[in-house]
Amino acid sequence: MRHVYECSVRFDDLDAFGHVNNVTFAEYLQEARVDFAHRRLSSSDDVAHEGSVVAHQSIDYLAPVPFRTEPLQVEVWVTRVGTTSFEVAYEVKDESTLFARATGVLVAFDVRANTPRPVSPAEREVLERYFEPSS
Amino acid sequence: MRHVYECSVRFDDLDAFGHVNNVTFAEYLQEARVDFAHRRLSSSDDVAHEGSVVAHQSIDYLAPVPFRTEPLQVEVWVTRVGTTSFEVAYEVKDESTLFARATGVLVAFDVRANTPRPVSPAEREVLERYFEPSS
Amino acid sequence: MRHVYECSVRFDDLDAFGHVNNVTFAEYLQEARVDFAHRRLSSSDDVAHEGSVVAHQSIDYLAPVPFRTEPLQVEVWVTRVGTTSFEVAYEVKDESTLFARATGVLVAFDVRANTPRPVSPAEREVLERYFEPSS
Amino acid sequence: MRHVYECSVRFDDLDAFGHVNNVTFAEYLQEARVDFAHRRLSSSDDVAHEGSVVAHQSIDYLAPVPFRTEPLQVEVWVTRVGTTSFEVAYEVKDESTLFARATGVLVAFDVRANTPRPVSPAEREVLERYFEPSS
Repeated sequence: MRHVYECSVRFDDLDAFGHVNNVTFAEYLQEARVDFAHRRLSSSDDVAHEGSVVAHQSIDYLAPVPFRTEPLQVEVWVTRVGTTSFEVAYEVKDESTLFARATGVLVAFDVRANTPRPVSPAEREVLERYFEPSS
Repeated sequence: MRHVYECSVRFDDLDAFGHVNNVTFAEYLQEARVDFAHRRLSSSDDVAHEGSVVAHQSIDYLAPVPFRTEPLQVEVWVTRVGTTSFEVAYEVKDESTLFARATGVLVAFDVRANTPRPVSPAEREVLERYFEPSS
Repeated sequence: MRHVYECSVRFDDLDAFGHVNNVTFAEYLQEARVDFAHRRLSSSDDVAHEGSVVAHQSIDYLAPVPFRTEPLQVEVWVTRVGTTSFEVAYEVKDESTLFARATGVLVAFDVRANTPRPVSPAEREVLERYFEPSS
Repeated sequence: MRHVYECSVRFDDLDAFGHVNNVTFAEYLQEARVDFAHRRLSSSDDVAHEGSVVAHQSIDYLAPVPFRTEPLQVEVWVTRVGTTSFEVAYEVKDESTLFARATGVLVAFDVRANTPRPVSPAEREVLERYFEPSS
């Protein structure tokens, strides 16, 4: 199962060459991840307590995205669940084109206490529902 | 030899947790790369003709960056020069801390003609001066 | 008649105080304006030819916007149509709250030729359909 | 007396037309204001306590800014000091060109307590040193 985030493209996302800038793809991944965390992962709205930080991220850019009024789909799913961290994969696409593939390592973090923390049992249960082995 | 870009941190770079957001690191890498291309690589100001596009990028996040008025240093250097692409490495740091390490694959691109192109002899000469084998 | 743009709020729009940053409101206005131009005003996709540039903008901030997964509505309408420029007004709102009011002066511009241009008859006709006298 | 903020232009600041986007000017004003607050206004680093929020902002765009490696100067000064708010003016310029003029109304705000607050005597003293009547 993958979480699908409908991602609007903004004029502001375009760079001087008229395409969505490579940096903005990292923003799209973040929006998909935050949407997933907000809708699926959080037991509460306390994102500051039950948060996570990006320890690693890797993106393959496959096709440029010109301005469009139709949203993109950003799919996010889980490829590993560890004790204090988990790994995710992403695809940025529409019906006909795969624009980018990405992977990330996320460390469970208590933002308020400013300290790493274990993945909670409630989080693990959700993360395992979105598990798909990496190909 | 590494190209060093002095990178101002903006209040706008901070996210809701008060640190420079992970996405902004990708922006810092881009600014360092554009500065390198503009000052060292371009034989002219025609960045649209003698450009490059990011095909792959990978970032390891090592330490958070809170707001600061002192600039960061982003170092960029070359780890491979191919026929139609080249690879770079980056470090985001200040005098005492290494905040992130990154690598990227750049494809030589004629933005105006919208087509890949060979790395030119003039580019190759500059890129080889900034070559440092990856560790 | 007002053009209504459904505006997604991104995590990236939040500043270190956890609210949508004041600068991002200007981005929301721009996205609404581009959407209006793209869907209503353009006779073609040639935004570079039949473009406009912002000569003046003024925003009143009425209420803060915390993170939300529901989109905001940005309404844009026309308050004056001149020979070479026109004026617009905006409201950023949801069902219960008016978050910001804004006005702007836009100068018709041929971006490719890099020169001001008259408002075309086709544009005038559309702009007048969205006309509402300023209160 | 005016506070002068040296503002780097980023490639990311450019829009699809190759100029610094109008929204980014609002970001430049914010960076100048934060720099002023951080260096001159704060008695401490507690920006969350002794903060301010933008209630109104108005920008006149006078000339476009293409990409440049030389920084811009953003000047900020004070045009009114009230009991719970103050007004500022800005100019975005370099040695030869005035790119934008702007004004803003800032409301003194205790971000942590989420409530307006009076302008403190220490703040008033600083603000009055940067006072220049609006022309």
